Amino acid sequence: MADFKLMRTLHQPAETKMVLLILDGVGGLSVTPGGPTELEAANTPNLDRLAAEGCLGQTIPVRPGITPGSGPGHLALFGYDPVTYDVGRGVIEASGVGMKVGKGDVAARGNFCTVDGAGMIIDRRAGRISSDEARPLVERLDAIELPDLQIDVRVLREYRFGVVMRGDGLAPNIHDTDPLVTGEPPLEAVASDPDSEHTAELVNAWVKEARKALAHEPKANALTLRGFSANPHLPQFDEIYGLDAVCIAVYPMYKGVAHLVGMGVHTFKGESPADEFAAARAIWSAHDFFFIHIKKTDSLGEDGEFDKKAEMIEKVDAALPDLLALSPDVLAVTGDHCTPARLKYHSWHPVPVLLWAPATARADAQKQFGETACSQGGLGTFQASELMPLMMAHASRLSKFGA
Amino acid sequence: MADFKLMRTLHQPAETKMVLLILDGVGGLSVTPGGPTELEAANTPNLDRLAAEGCLGQTIPVRPGITPGSGPGHLALFGYDPVTYDVGRGVIEASGVGMKVGKGDVAARGNFCTVDGAGMIIDRRAGRISSDEARPLVERLDAIELPDLQIDVRVLREYRFGVVMRGDGLAPNIHDTDPLVTGEPPLEAVASDPDSEHTAELVNAWVKEARKALAHEPKANALTLRGFSANPHLPQFDEIYGLDAVCIAVYPMYKGVAHLVGMGVHTFKGESPADEFAAARAIWSAHDFFFIHIKKTDSLGEDGEFDKKAEMIEKVDAALPDLLALSPDVLAVTGDHCTPARLKYHSWHPVPVLLWAPATARADAQKQFGETACSQGGLGTFQASELMPLMMAHASRLSKFGA
Repeated sequence: MADFKLMRTLHQPAETKMVLLILDGVGGLSVTPGGPTELEAANTPNLDRLAAEGCLGQTIPVRPGITPGSGPGHLALFGYDPVTYDVGRGVIEASGVGMKVGKGDVAARGNFCTVDGAGMIIDRRAGRISSDEARPLVERLDAIELPDLQIDVRVLREYRFGVVMRGDGLAPNIHDTDPLVTGEPPLEAVASDPDSEHTAELVNAWVKEARKALAHEPKANALTLRGFSANPHLPQFDEIYGLDAVCIAVYPMYKGVAHLVGMGVHTFKGESPADEFAAARAIWSAHDFFFIHIKKTDSLGEDGEFDKKAEMIEKVDAALPDLLALSPDVLAVTGDHCTPARLKYHSWHPVPVLLWAPATARADAQKQFGETACSQGGLGTFQASELMPLMMAHASRLSKFGA
Repeated sequence: MADFKLMRTLHQPAETKMVLLILDGVGGLSVTPGGPTELEAANTPNLDRLAAEGCLGQTIPVRPGITPGSGPGHLALFGYDPVTYDVGRGVIEASGVGMKVGKGDVAARGNFCTVDGAGMIIDRRAGRISSDEARPLVERLDAIELPDLQIDVRVLREYRFGVVMRGDGLAPNIHDTDPLVTGEPPLEAVASDPDSEHTAELVNAWVKEARKALAHEPKANALTLRGFSANPHLPQFDEIYGLDAVCIAVYPMYKGVAHLVGMGVHTFKGESPADEFAAARAIWSAHDFFFIHIKKTDSLGEDGEFDKKAEMIEKVDAALPDLLALSPDVLAVTGDHCTPARLKYHSWHPVPVLLWAPATARADAQKQFGETACSQGGLGTFQASELMPLMMAHASRLSKFGA
């Protein structure tokens, strides 16, 4: 991982602007022998120009062979070794909608689900109800009062909600209550260590009240909880790198992980790459480092939509001149992991990365942003958590080590 | 090294079959400027097809610049960092012929040698006597009785034998007694720490008896001992990876290291690559993971036989369709180290590796299995101990890390 001690010692101020543009799940696989990946199939004249001027490589998000979730994938890109800094989903998502997870609090991610008369889950996502449909239900859950526990509940997106528990003696080591299949009931909350047993009991008491409050709903008549976790109190971005960093993302998950490392989270209108680049433009003078997150490349990979994923990459490419017009000094384009449409899920394959820095990049022999070119790029194959120091260097923000 | 904690947490069952095919010492050097290595000179249409369909790279067995022995080379391929897990030759070889090395026991590797009338070694390998010639001598040694020590002795191969000592207060830190040159006598056993002094005395008392028992032999009239070591009680393969693994090898050394990590060791007839692949076929349904070891690539490298080493690689290639007919889901072909015929010994050079997994591999730009292609392959250059996690991932045997 990035050597935080070195970063703290060597970082120096500069006027430079850095952009970390994440195309979630960008890396892929060919669907025909010898054929292109999604990224290679996409027509990306702007990215290819940056590839020719800059330098390519491929990153290992966690360890060779390890498939990362979104949390670990992003922590690595921010310089944190995701095995050392193991952050739970609950705290990431709750933070992403601005819920405060303080010391001693326990956060979780909730899903509304539909159960039949026998209490068996028939839809794990409650018919994917909208955020608007979910809002009054979440308000009902938020109003539940228990003697030893304060539970705040907030809508995340659609059928998903964030939960933060506050009280004495809470501990987060509790198994998920989602059985992950239909035809079974939501699981009881079960502690995985003795310190968390009291918390599990409180959770079960709360779920009982919540089920009463939802009993007559047509779709969202039950719930599951996952990712029980405490705030890991990560070292903060400004203190490590001396950067004023900001997150431009649509989904709470990514805002959450940015918030946990101490980035500001910018609120803006719209969801397209062009909207996100416009958002960056609006606050360009106020920050040093812009983490811009594009979600749909991942979603389309998970749906197995090879062509649509390639088209999404083309949309990013088409909007890229707006971003380049801001004249960033350093631009890294990469993913937090691969999501090959062929596999329909996250994978462990190395992730293509493009590092462009007109003042300092050493151009390699590669001319196109794609997996094969990246595997032969001048940056080689390296841990994703080493990308931040490279970006810092190209931004003239690291002084010399030793005399 | 492979992160065992991650492996233990993430491994999941699957129906997939994995093959780790080790061509011992496969990596080499050209003998003419700009010429091919042994592997590149070999005509290997089957391996080249796999190279085109799969992905290449090169591994560092221990650390850059470090030349590994066979033990460390194989431990790394099994995922163990060989610096962390320092396993002695004695315990590996004794385990390889089924000798039990229990807690508190000390194992060593013995060599018969020939001494002249003055006790000076004139042949360090006792004329390379055959296993059949060695057997009655080993029985004589095995029959020696000492008051404070039980010593079991068993034939390894030809002039080599395994020794396991059992008794109270034994410790393994004893220097080798082979002076490594002729014209000098076998050395006394000397402890390298105070705890091992008593054991060294017992060893010397035993050697005195052994020398009496061998005194009238024409060739094997003396012996040397090396690789004194205790059982390191390595973490076991099934517990780390959830795999039922089996070893198919001809030489005790490789069976020994496989046994020490908890693999089954399969006994079969014959010694050729085709015999070994037939052995795999015979037990294909019974195991998940097949470690198949080809020895002669290394032996021919040590003999400086460039052409014969290339021919041996061709024999493996010619037999490969038998292995592929079993439809492994993941096949890795590599070596435990390089043994360039030009150098006639093990070397530190990065080792070519081919990873083939039809369902999930990302083909790179390389089309031929050779050192130059591997140095430009899509897997990059990585620690040999990271190969197992990669194989596990391609076998769909690792779940996602983090949400």
